[in-house]
Amino acid sequence: MPLAMNREVFITCAVTGSGGTQDKSPHVPRSPAQIAESAIAAAKAGASVVHCHVRDPETGAPSRDKGLFREVTDRIRESETDVVLNLTAGMGGDIVYGGVETPLPPVEGTDMIGATERVAHVADCRPEICTLDCGTMNFAEADYVMTNTPGMLQAMGKMMTDLGVKPEIEAFDTGHLWYAKQLVKDGILEPDALVQLCMGVPWGAPDDLNTFMAMVNNIPEDWTFSAFALGRNQMPYVAASVLAGGNVRVGLEDNLMLDKGVLAENWQLVERAVGIVENLGARVIGPEEVRKKLRLTKQAPV
Amino acid sequence: MPLAMNREVFITCAVTGSGGTQDKSPHVPRSPAQIAESAIAAAKAGASVVHCHVRDPETGAPSRDKGLFREVTDRIRESETDVVLNLTAGMGGDIVYGGVETPLPPVEGTDMIGATERVAHVADCRPEICTLDCGTMNFAEADYVMTNTPGMLQAMGKMMTDLGVKPEIEAFDTGHLWYAKQLVKDGILEPDALVQLCMGVPWGAPDDLNTFMAMVNNIPEDWTFSAFALGRNQMPYVAASVLAGGNVRVGLEDNLMLDKGVLAENWQLVERAVGIVENLGARVIGPEEVRKKLRLTKQAPV
Amino acid sequence: MPLAMNREVFITCAVTGSGGTQDKSPHVPRSPAQIAESAIAAAKAGASVVHCHVRDPETGAPSRDKGLFREVTDRIRESETDVVLNLTAGMGGDIVYGGVETPLPPVEGTDMIGATERVAHVADCRPEICTLDCGTMNFAEADYVMTNTPGMLQAMGKMMTDLGVKPEIEAFDTGHLWYAKQLVKDGILEPDALVQLCMGVPWGAPDDLNTFMAMVNNIPEDWTFSAFALGRNQMPYVAASVLAGGNVRVGLEDNLMLDKGVLAENWQLVERAVGIVENLGARVIGPEEVRKKLRLTKQAPV
Amino acid sequence: MPLAMNREVFITCAVTGSGGTQDKSPHVPRSPAQIAESAIAAAKAGASVVHCHVRDPETGAPSRDKGLFREVTDRIRESETDVVLNLTAGMGGDIVYGGVETPLPPVEGTDMIGATERVAHVADCRPEICTLDCGTMNFAEADYVMTNTPGMLQAMGKMMTDLGVKPEIEAFDTGHLWYAKQLVKDGILEPDALVQLCMGVPWGAPDDLNTFMAMVNNIPEDWTFSAFALGRNQMPYVAASVLAGGNVRVGLEDNLMLDKGVLAENWQLVERAVGIVENLGARVIGPEEVRKKLRLTKQAPV
Repeated sequence: MPLAMNREVFITCAVTGSGGTQDKSPHVPRSPAQIAESAIAAAKAGASVVHCHVRDPETGAPSRDKGLFREVTDRIRESETDVVLNLTAGMGGDIVYGGVETPLPPVEGTDMIGATERVAHVADCRPEICTLDCGTMNFAEADYVMTNTPGMLQAMGKMMTDLGVKPEIEAFDTGHLWYAKQLVKDGILEPDALVQLCMGVPWGAPDDLNTFMAMVNNIPEDWTFSAFALGRNQMPYVAASVLAGGNVRVGLEDNLMLDKGVLAENWQLVERAVGIVENLGARVIGPEEVRKKLRLTKQAPV
Repeated sequence: MPLAMNREVFITCAVTGSGGTQDKSPHVPRSPAQIAESAIAAAKAGASVVHCHVRDPETGAPSRDKGLFREVTDRIRESETDVVLNLTAGMGGDIVYGGVETPLPPVEGTDMIGATERVAHVADCRPEICTLDCGTMNFAEADYVMTNTPGMLQAMGKMMTDLGVKPEIEAFDTGHLWYAKQLVKDGILEPDALVQLCMGVPWGAPDDLNTFMAMVNNIPEDWTFSAFALGRNQMPYVAASVLAGGNVRVGLEDNLMLDKGVLAENWQLVERAVGIVENLGARVIGPEEVRKKLRLTKQAPV
Repeated sequence: MPLAMNREVFITCAVTGSGGTQDKSPHVPRSPAQIAESAIAAAKAGASVVHCHVRDPETGAPSRDKGLFREVTDRIRESETDVVLNLTAGMGGDIVYGGVETPLPPVEGTDMIGATERVAHVADCRPEICTLDCGTMNFAEADYVMTNTPGMLQAMGKMMTDLGVKPEIEAFDTGHLWYAKQLVKDGILEPDALVQLCMGVPWGAPDDLNTFMAMVNNIPEDWTFSAFALGRNQMPYVAASVLAGGNVRVGLEDNLMLDKGVLAENWQLVERAVGIVENLGARVIGPEEVRKKLRLTKQAPV
Repeated sequence: MPLAMNREVFITCAVTGSGGTQDKSPHVPRSPAQIAESAIAAAKAGASVVHCHVRDPETGAPSRDKGLFREVTDRIRESETDVVLNLTAGMGGDIVYGGVETPLPPVEGTDMIGATERVAHVADCRPEICTLDCGTMNFAEADYVMTNTPGMLQAMGKMMTDLGVKPEIEAFDTGHLWYAKQLVKDGILEPDALVQLCMGVPWGAPDDLNTFMAMVNNIPEDWTFSAFALGRNQMPYVAASVLAGGNVRVGLEDNLMLDKGVLAENWQLVERAVGIVENLGARVIGPEEVRKKLRLTKQAPV
């Protein structure tokens, strides 16, 4: 079989994330204005999708404040640079256990809310895309668990579909991808689903190519996929995903460094990704082509 | 490369489990006496390892009562049939969320206890092997999550190693296997680790062969592995695991049926697995060979 | 993705082959009567397809004598045991080079003939299936090359299709499978092609599972496949092929031994394969079901 | 397992090849002076190895004239640009059959010579590396077969090893790689072998990633590998090989185009490969580092 490379690639820039990175780099945007500005710069550099979280404008701490999401949305929508808006809906599924001898009740850091509240900013902002973290797993630190039960995913997925917002399934391991297929089978997600393979996030799927290809081989033919890896494997995964037939995600959410010892800005990471994609012989497509490909509707905020 | 098949295979019988299966088949053993009897029959049929949970003798509901574990242990140890004892340590990591709008606090069905208590019956019974479910994931039903955080796994793993009991890592997805390697790297597990690949358990790794091979390719060379799948894929995975270089697990914990419409007993499932293994040209090894291979110590209960 | 196992499996018995095995086992049939008898016994044991070569009745040396093929055909067709007939068309593509310093001209052992002659016995006997070795490669010994050029394959493939005989593509390596797809694309083979993955034949594809799965992943969805490996990996590949979604080939062409030190008869190998297939939970299908599945026409000899 | 990417990569430029490409691009070098000049320009652009064939200086037809190889060698060695010299030993294993009805005797285009003669220019020029095409297969056109029998490979391999020239095994399919391992096992090649995975050459291994990974998974740990694909997949395979842990080959032998409609020069292809490698975060290593890594000896011509 000839190499099933994607020759028409879209790049998502994951602008800021919810990691504790705000004090590790001055380029991690905090306020809505900064986030929008960084997103727009990324779009100008070639990102046709911007994936946004919000942060406390002062402390940089991750937030799920509806007003902040709305401000980011408005600023991006009102700019002259067209870009597909992708908002996280990952917040509010966080549990931190109370330690190895008394795990319950959950302790500080826990933020575990209902489906309606988790999707409230999506209902308000009406981005073209929002994320759906498609499972539960240990997430790096000792006692923190990213928690999204099947029931929660069904509820959130249905709300998103009803809102006309395309869920981007985040699959952090092979089982999340499996469950995403179940959501399609159950009619909760549309058959031409969109999935992001999140590789090398401890403790989900490792980012070796055998694991990656096992996941790629399990994506239905009518789905669209993208993939990323963390840290210094961010640029390698730009290539890996395109080679395997997918699209690309880069940005400060996943990686702070441009080169060894050099802190990156979002537009620089996008620029480098564009360079890789084009050197592979593929074309970077723009936001209108992405909307058409993914059947996205650009809606006005409510 | 020539087929890396395992030609000296051990069979584990997973005797009863903790699933809600006790009313689906009269052969699911409930009382310690029944569990021991079923385990011994399995051993006579060719299982050199028996993996045991305990249940309420009356209702058959899953239990983690120390006294029940001890009775099972004593009955198996006192029988004239030699077999390697493998006790679950999976109980006590169960959370059931309160639904999609008010996930917290956890509701009935939750059983989330500390590391010391989770390992108490192991400290008491001193089996050669006990299990270590190496991660957190959605587990089949809507709001139930199997919860084992990294901190918990470190604590439990260290206790097991200190007790001289070999942990059998249960890897339900690729990330669990990755974390198990971290536990070895951290010195919590010994370098020649033992891992069970649990395939096709919703919502962990699906049981297609590409995913399975990606996991097998990621097992360090000095580890020993076994694999199983659920339901009607139990016998196919006997073959799959042997072909890929691994060992075998069958039993009523994972599958109730011998043939379509025919409920199985444990010894029958073992007997069928022996048939497959031998027809593939491999030899089934006994408990003494398993102890030598895995460096297991048969200890007296405390 | 759930295990894509084949649950309705046909077994081909490769009755005698053209290897130099006739003096290694008294059970390798030589005369048409012996070949037919062994084939029929295999069919009675569960083979729904018999793949036949012919040999010199006295010496057992491989032959491509039309009369011998006809006698085998007639004897099998006239028996009361129904079975799908599959005749080799692999003979006549053999070159033995003259050594490392003077490779040309070819020396004794060479048998390199034209397409019409290679297919003559097929035109005469009209089996339901005949083989098409889909490439050129070094074949075990120092200076022997199995030689089937693209031009030859196009010519032979067209003749077979025109005769209403289904070609069974033999793919000994990944490139042979690739070329087979080209033959379909060129309209020489029908879209629902039949392929035999010949694993572990020196010096074609090795029989490790990663290589096998790479080939399986490259088989178009509307094709039917079978797979085999040599010697002591014959029975393991019965399981491997079924697990991967394929059918099964066993027989003395590929393996002489039933167990260590025990020479096999064809029917015994088939019987063992039936045991494996059934223990995996699949059903062995008969010749009429195979004809329907593969759209085969049972023709009268000319 | 973390991504096993190669972070210290060498680039081979395959300068001119023996394909019928000389009239398709004015940049395909013909004379020894042109070949050396193109090779040196490639080295200056970042290739630390140059893989050279020779051609008739007038017609551009592929040649195996010893004098031409010597002139290329001398010119490259005498330049001020250091580069590892890799000469083909692929010539002289070519058979063109006489068509589908009378395949033998071979016809025009056939060039099938003895091992000593095939290695004569290597014995004369003493490059650090020469190639060893590790098998026999149909090669694109209808009746042409690249023919290298096991006997021939043993003889040539031994001659190379005795000359102190490192063979670069060319593996065009999975069976070629298998046989290369046999050559190591037989003591003909050294244990730390060097292999080039030649992907997507009709009718060898296709260049899809599943097939590629199956081959990569079969490379022994102490070997060094490189990989390439043809035409527009040349640059994608720069990334694929680095991601999978390998090194890189580009050049006019495998691909004539820089971009759609733009004919390439060798140095431009190398330059682009350097860009990809560096954007992935890897370092391009120079000729002295390659010699050290591969234990190569720079010898004087005889």
